[in-house]
Amino acid sequence: MNGPALADSVRFAGDAVEILDRRVYPFEVRWVRCATSEDVAVAIERMVTQSSGPLFAATAGMVLGAREARHDPPAEAAARLRAVGARLVATRPTNNHIRDAVHAVLAELAAAQEDGALAGDALVAAVERAARAHDAAYWARSDALGEHAASLLPDGARVLTHCWADAYLIGTVRAAQRAGKRLEFVCTETRPYLQGARLTAATLVEMGYRPTLITDGMVAAALSDGLADVALTAADRVTLDGHVINKVGTLGVALAAGAFGVPFYALVDAPDPQAPTAQDVVIERRDGDEVLYALGRRTAADGVTGYYPVFDVTPPHLVTRIVTERGVHQPDRVKESL
Amino acid sequence: MNGPALADSVRFAGDAVEILDRRVYPFEVRWVRCATSEDVAVAIERMVTQSSGPLFAATAGMVLGAREARHDPPAEAAARLRAVGARLVATRPTNNHIRDAVHAVLAELAAAQEDGALAGDALVAAVERAARAHDAAYWARSDALGEHAASLLPDGARVLTHCWADAYLIGTVRAAQRAGKRLEFVCTETRPYLQGARLTAATLVEMGYRPTLITDGMVAAALSDGLADVALTAADRVTLDGHVINKVGTLGVALAAGAFGVPFYALVDAPDPQAPTAQDVVIERRDGDEVLYALGRRTAADGVTGYYPVFDVTPPHLVTRIVTERGVHQPDRVKESL
Repeated sequence: MNGPALADSVRFAGDAVEILDRRVYPFEVRWVRCATSEDVAVAIERMVTQSSGPLFAATAGMVLGAREARHDPPAEAAARLRAVGARLVATRPTNNHIRDAVHAVLAELAAAQEDGALAGDALVAAVERAARAHDAAYWARSDALGEHAASLLPDGARVLTHCWADAYLIGTVRAAQRAGKRLEFVCTETRPYLQGARLTAATLVEMGYRPTLITDGMVAAALSDGLADVALTAADRVTLDGHVINKVGTLGVALAAGAFGVPFYALVDAPDPQAPTAQDVVIERRDGDEVLYALGRRTAADGVTGYYPVFDVTPPHLVTRIVTERGVHQPDRVKESL
Repeated sequence: MNGPALADSVRFAGDAVEILDRRVYPFEVRWVRCATSEDVAVAIERMVTQSSGPLFAATAGMVLGAREARHDPPAEAAARLRAVGARLVATRPTNNHIRDAVHAVLAELAAAQEDGALAGDALVAAVERAARAHDAAYWARSDALGEHAASLLPDGARVLTHCWADAYLIGTVRAAQRAGKRLEFVCTETRPYLQGARLTAATLVEMGYRPTLITDGMVAAALSDGLADVALTAADRVTLDGHVINKVGTLGVALAAGAFGVPFYALVDAPDPQAPTAQDVVIERRDGDEVLYALGRRTAADGVTGYYPVFDVTPPHLVTRIVTERGVHQPDRVKESL
């Protein structure tokens, strides 16, 4: 994929998979080498990659799993691959990309095995094909989503982002550029991992913009001051009844957008058919200690306890539109897009 | 003043004034030595001290100004002292504590000079007395305010704080402790200077609590999740029509509190009689580069521009009550407290 560095952040290198370490990018361009599917799972758990990154890491992890099963008889190979998939799905609970990637690879493999169970090199080749197909389909969905999202942005729009919307943002910006629309960006820094200050900002700079950076506490002031015309975030998950689950802070963005008459658009390739309501989504809580540091340096006084819900839930009445690969939807009707 | 370290953070040391460096506290206990009134002004501009700190720095700066004028004839001494006061007032525009402290010292001095202009040691002694009186009066006002604020907190209340409310918070906690009320605290970290993670958290630990720390983006999630019963912040300024000007992020706290049915209380010794409306208050904008660093370490990608409005404006309809030294007020009636 030709494009910004983060658009190609999981790669094969000989027998291993290398994942660009988003915890330190762009200050360091460091690739974490994963020799096994277990290494990939641990890398996802440790936040080496995030946003859309775990999708590509998951398909690559399945390829490693197939290679690990190369010398197994067919039934053992299939069981081993299912176990690898379950391990990858268990890494992080809230975004459904990993689950869907694993299921897609296994389903593709099942289809390829209609004429008999595969093993050895044939199994590896089939999983590699399925992984490549899933990756490419995700980019295609993100491009389609980007076209729909860009259609909502007037020429000259000043866009507030939160966290890092990855392929959805890249797709949206490319579509806006194809349409000749000028855009400006205001990015929240997105503590504790600073995805906005580092990943979103660096990628937008690569794509030709000069983003304005604010702290997470400045969202309401920025919208009250008229600094942005539109608020645009990804969604890690959208439920069938239109709840938007995304990086913690999105709820505050939505509240401020509503209070100051700024439309709030959430981007997701599709709502999750397995999540009728927000109660069906597990909100990941990470170690509270992650809140007490910035880029590895302690920021908090001794004696405090951190609290780190990674995502929050924005109810449909605070979301102006949900944009999927299928089009632009009212939140309470997003389920009709399936 | 017996109490937490930050309750006594401006001190005289021989010919100089020393100011506790709040940019690095509690990780380092470093005192910035100010040999002249100009040094004090620069220290305030550079954020060596903040919140209530500049009030005490300003009265101390006036004492240094009187000493600098010790050998001036009376008229020159008075002119020099007015110039020192103007320099101190010009350091930071939004909070009116510095302005009021300078005016109080000059007014006290004028009263002391009714029987003739002072100069030399008599001038210095009079300014020292006026400075001490103003400092003590501020603590008395904060204690009175604290009694009123504590009256709003039920036993066992879980209190969300933003930034560092300094003497007001200390006064409130002391009053709650005298009343035998148990409290818990959830503190925002308050980027970019991390006053919540460092100053509020460290002081609450000193006072016997184990605060929970969240990032600024987690306020809405925390209130939506029921993590706090009350939101409580200082106000750097309250206008006569009930607008609360406080550390940027307060507006987002108020929006989230309103959305999730949590009362939001703002603490200020008194509304500003010179500020009928929010248009009468200058909102300080600091160098945007301050947003691109955490504790001196770069947090943002190259090519971005920081935006740093230090304060935001919360309209009266988002404020449940304003607490002053006089009592508890509806925001739209706070002017009646004068």
